[in-house]
Amino acid sequence: MNFDVTILGSNSAISEHGRHPTAQAINISNQLFLMDCGEGTQERLLQYKVKWFSINHIFISHLHGDHYFGLIGLITTYNLLKRKQSLTIFAPAQLKDIVELQLSVSNTMLCYELNFVATKDDDLHKVFENDQVEIFSFPLIHRIPTTGFLFKQKEGERRLLIEKVADLDIDKSDYKLLKQGVDITDKKGNTVKAQDVTEAARAARSYAFCSDTMYNENIVEYIKDVDLLYHEATYLHDSLDRAIQTKHSTALQAAQIAKKANATKLLIGHFSSRYYHLSILQDEAKTAFENVELAIEGEVFSV
Amino acid sequence: MNFDVTILGSNSAISEHGRHPTAQAINISNQLFLMDCGEGTQERLLQYKVKWFSINHIFISHLHGDHYFGLIGLITTYNLLKRKQSLTIFAPAQLKDIVELQLSVSNTMLCYELNFVATKDDDLHKVFENDQVEIFSFPLIHRIPTTGFLFKQKEGERRLLIEKVADLDIDKSDYKLLKQGVDITDKKGNTVKAQDVTEAARAARSYAFCSDTMYNENIVEYIKDVDLLYHEATYLHDSLDRAIQTKHSTALQAAQIAKKANATKLLIGHFSSRYYHLSILQDEAKTAFENVELAIEGEVFSV
Repeated sequence: MNFDVTILGSNSAISEHGRHPTAQAINISNQLFLMDCGEGTQERLLQYKVKWFSINHIFISHLHGDHYFGLIGLITTYNLLKRKQSLTIFAPAQLKDIVELQLSVSNTMLCYELNFVATKDDDLHKVFENDQVEIFSFPLIHRIPTTGFLFKQKEGERRLLIEKVADLDIDKSDYKLLKQGVDITDKKGNTVKAQDVTEAARAARSYAFCSDTMYNENIVEYIKDVDLLYHEATYLHDSLDRAIQTKHSTALQAAQIAKKANATKLLIGHFSSRYYHLSILQDEAKTAFENVELAIEGEVFSV
Repeated sequence: MNFDVTILGSNSAISEHGRHPTAQAINISNQLFLMDCGEGTQERLLQYKVKWFSINHIFISHLHGDHYFGLIGLITTYNLLKRKQSLTIFAPAQLKDIVELQLSVSNTMLCYELNFVATKDDDLHKVFENDQVEIFSFPLIHRIPTTGFLFKQKEGERRLLIEKVADLDIDKSDYKLLKQGVDITDKKGNTVKAQDVTEAARAARSYAFCSDTMYNENIVEYIKDVDLLYHEATYLHDSLDRAIQTKHSTALQAAQIAKKANATKLLIGHFSSRYYHLSILQDEAKTAFENVELAIEGEVFSV
């Protein structure tokens, strides 16, 4: 089961140095989720060959423009291209007013169902669940109400040991039971123990998205042991004053959170335009946490 | 005095084939005006090296997203980059509500003055005037209230004939009077006739922007004898039914309007994504009006 994150933008505030504002496509077993949607995200979805018509759920962390100005364009492009399936947007409540006002002044009746789920920044909340994944929002501390999101893949089924099941005299419908760990009886009446012909499911993986936020140890409980942690790192630590003033984080602080959370890998992004070369941010983060990657546009990170 | 139009986007509805939604920068004697502002216009302003901090007036023809979704991003980018001078937006009244709502939810207090002037689609209205230009809005017929805009350069001053004034025994301050057509007296007491040492000003030029609109002969009176006419040509005439249904024009209709208006040159744009090669639209228009150009992104057209 694939679980990966495609970076569609990771610059802070404005587009610069060929970098664009925040957006990510998260693929879990070929179900696509869009995380934030800065201006021009629809162009990046095409550019990086994301199957954007498979996105049915969009998550908006907060209502600063660099995280959502591309949403209304995406919504109306879906409409122009005759989207059929429903689309659900998880975001602060006011986004619904903004989108509905814009649809109303253009006299647009969408040809698909558009739903809004208002996020709350007071605590951990499960906002979505299907057979593959649970998605939670949790509070971040920024200048306006902001949430992070945690994607927790569900424990999968046990995996058949092909070489062992190949010779069994059983129906294919029995495979499903075996994968669920249920012992079965073959056509000769012999018991087949699931334990003997299957192996444990792959460990369920998790991804946390934390942008924008000031350094906040309270989030560690929500993201404990996460496999991949995206944490904003707008500034170097020599600009800590600026980070505090704007309620952003430094690369060092992002690494400190990753360490406290016992994350496997840290992905940093939301880079200030003041940095042309990003390796200095990565180097700084590595002083506190070894496994750090830069969220470079177009790159795909496996969880 | 320069007077030119830079095309920043001329595709209809969505970005496709490397073409972007409508936006144009109009330069009149180094004063810049922005006409419409589809998503991503701020990127095109940079790409085509328009001096975008010199734009003090923005005109929005109507509130379909492909004509204004890039505006809120431009407004907030100006703010992040500490714009000082005021910015005035001429647009249907509801745009003010949309922008103010978006600024309000992000808790943004702009560091510059932002003014809105509500356009009316009932008649010709002068919306702006300075020492170089008069700008008028006039009604177009589309699915929602829409206006075109007419830029009329003012009659300039007479031009000095350098070879004739060089030998005159006069003060430089007299040049100004001569250019205004006023006769003066030289230092020896001789009359110098303005007529003898100056030539007529260059003819004042005009530019009309008509997008989006169905075929509408009523606009001819507003744009009569215009030097450069931008008229939408979303479809070929074999899609006239579709043009009528969506209240757009065909290339042939755009040319018919140019002919009736006695325009010098016609610039067609707002191309449907169904056309990859645009020359067929130009060819069709040329059957009714000879001087037709395609509004290709990045190209600059002198008025």
